[in-house]
Amino acid sequence: MIHNTTIDTQMNHRSIRAFKDQSLTTEQLATLYDVARCTSSSRFLQQFSILHLTDAKKRAAVRTIAGQPYVGANGDLLIFIADLYRNQQLRHDMGQDDGSLHSFDEYMQAVEDTVLAVQNTVIAAESMGLGAVILGSIMNDPAQLVKTLELPPMTFPILGVQVGIPDQEPQLKPRLPIANMAFENDYPRGIKAADLKEYDDVVTTYYDLRDANRRIDSFTKQVAGAKLAHTDHHRDQLVQLLHDQGLALDMK
Amino acid sequence: MIHNTTIDTQMNHRSIRAFKDQSLTTEQLATLYDVARCTSSSRFLQQFSILHLTDAKKRAAVRTIAGQPYVGANGDLLIFIADLYRNQQLRHDMGQDDGSLHSFDEYMQAVEDTVLAVQNTVIAAESMGLGAVILGSIMNDPAQLVKTLELPPMTFPILGVQVGIPDQEPQLKPRLPIANMAFENDYPRGIKAADLKEYDDVVTTYYDLRDANRRIDSFTKQVAGAKLAHTDHHRDQLVQLLHDQGLALDMK
Repeated sequence: MIHNTTIDTQMNHRSIRAFKDQSLTTEQLATLYDVARCTSSSRFLQQFSILHLTDAKKRAAVRTIAGQPYVGANGDLLIFIADLYRNQQLRHDMGQDDGSLHSFDEYMQAVEDTVLAVQNTVIAAESMGLGAVILGSIMNDPAQLVKTLELPPMTFPILGVQVGIPDQEPQLKPRLPIANMAFENDYPRGIKAADLKEYDDVVTTYYDLRDANRRIDSFTKQVAGAKLAHTDHHRDQLVQLLHDQGLALDMK
Repeated sequence: MIHNTTIDTQMNHRSIRAFKDQSLTTEQLATLYDVARCTSSSRFLQQFSILHLTDAKKRAAVRTIAGQPYVGANGDLLIFIADLYRNQQLRHDMGQDDGSLHSFDEYMQAVEDTVLAVQNTVIAAESMGLGAVILGSIMNDPAQLVKTLELPPMTFPILGVQVGIPDQEPQLKPRLPIANMAFENDYPRGIKAADLKEYDDVVTTYYDLRDANRRIDSFTKQVAGAKLAHTDHHRDQLVQLLHDQGLALDMK
């Protein structure tokens, strides 16, 4: 294992969900934006944007959607947006049609631009001693989120990042062994729960140390349980909402 | 602007497409895997995998698909895969049905896990003095790629990363100004090409310095031009291929 300051920051990643009652400085925020915009982007089209929510009503609305009390509470809330609107507007202004902008392929490339920038931003924040958590939960009610953010067509929210001064020191969460997620040339078939016995024990111990009073399952039991059970929820509306926004229209 | 080793690495990012004829050491590769698996994942489900292609035939096949001579040439080639197969297998082994695994929502969360890990890997590589390029081009013929990689159902390739010892020193590519990609509370409407005049000049100068003999367009001209023009290509098959892999079946 090679060590340097950056890699140690990355290996030391833990999601922070409790922040001190203090916002980022202008310089901290500008630095995060600068790192975000330096991220690789597909074909140099730079199809993402960031919305920084400081408005108390909007933050509260996003908190309600996410259903997590720390969302839009202490710390700064950034919403990362797949953005095909900017390039659509530029094309129109220059007398061009929408070209491939309404395709699923183009949408996915914008999603990739967006998610790459999310991770770059999180690492930059952590390198400054800030804490961060990536929020998939903002998409628990995507229609409500698009409405709350008053987003134009050809944009779609992807992930939130809550970032600030950490007010907790959680333990490192143990991850799948390399042998189970990185392979040479051939993807192996037929993994069994027993293959992850050792990892399951490590995960169980992690949860026991975190909170001995609240029993949480091993990794395989989480996979077998409610997290992946089929339930009806607002997230099922994702495809319709993408279409409503003019995105991925060839996705039928 | 705040500076530290990590942020300077991130701000210094440039895609490297020419590598020395030398593979990563076992330790370098293991470190990249270790960083990748420490990336945030949606609901701790860790739904991505990495395929390291060393097989000459497979590398050549991916190069043909990408249509870029440096893909699978010098350096190491990693394929990042959205992976719902592992958790499906675990669920089956534990007597459960497929739950939500075939939904578009679940697929998108796996894509997000995958792309976050890509960016973390690239930063780790760059922090070690290695160079890297993210390869969206591996998806130019997704059917051929899935076949080449012999991937099981419930997996889908997302991005490649070519990584190695740099054999070029490209200039930093100028990115969109912060004012055009990061906004407070409200997403602004109606951007015009003229709003990016200054940026366009910077981009044009960058290309002129890179290669005075090959005229490349400003940012807005690239947006207005062929990159986003509608053309029929294999990438239009993405949705059908996802379905063939058992993914995003509610996407109709």
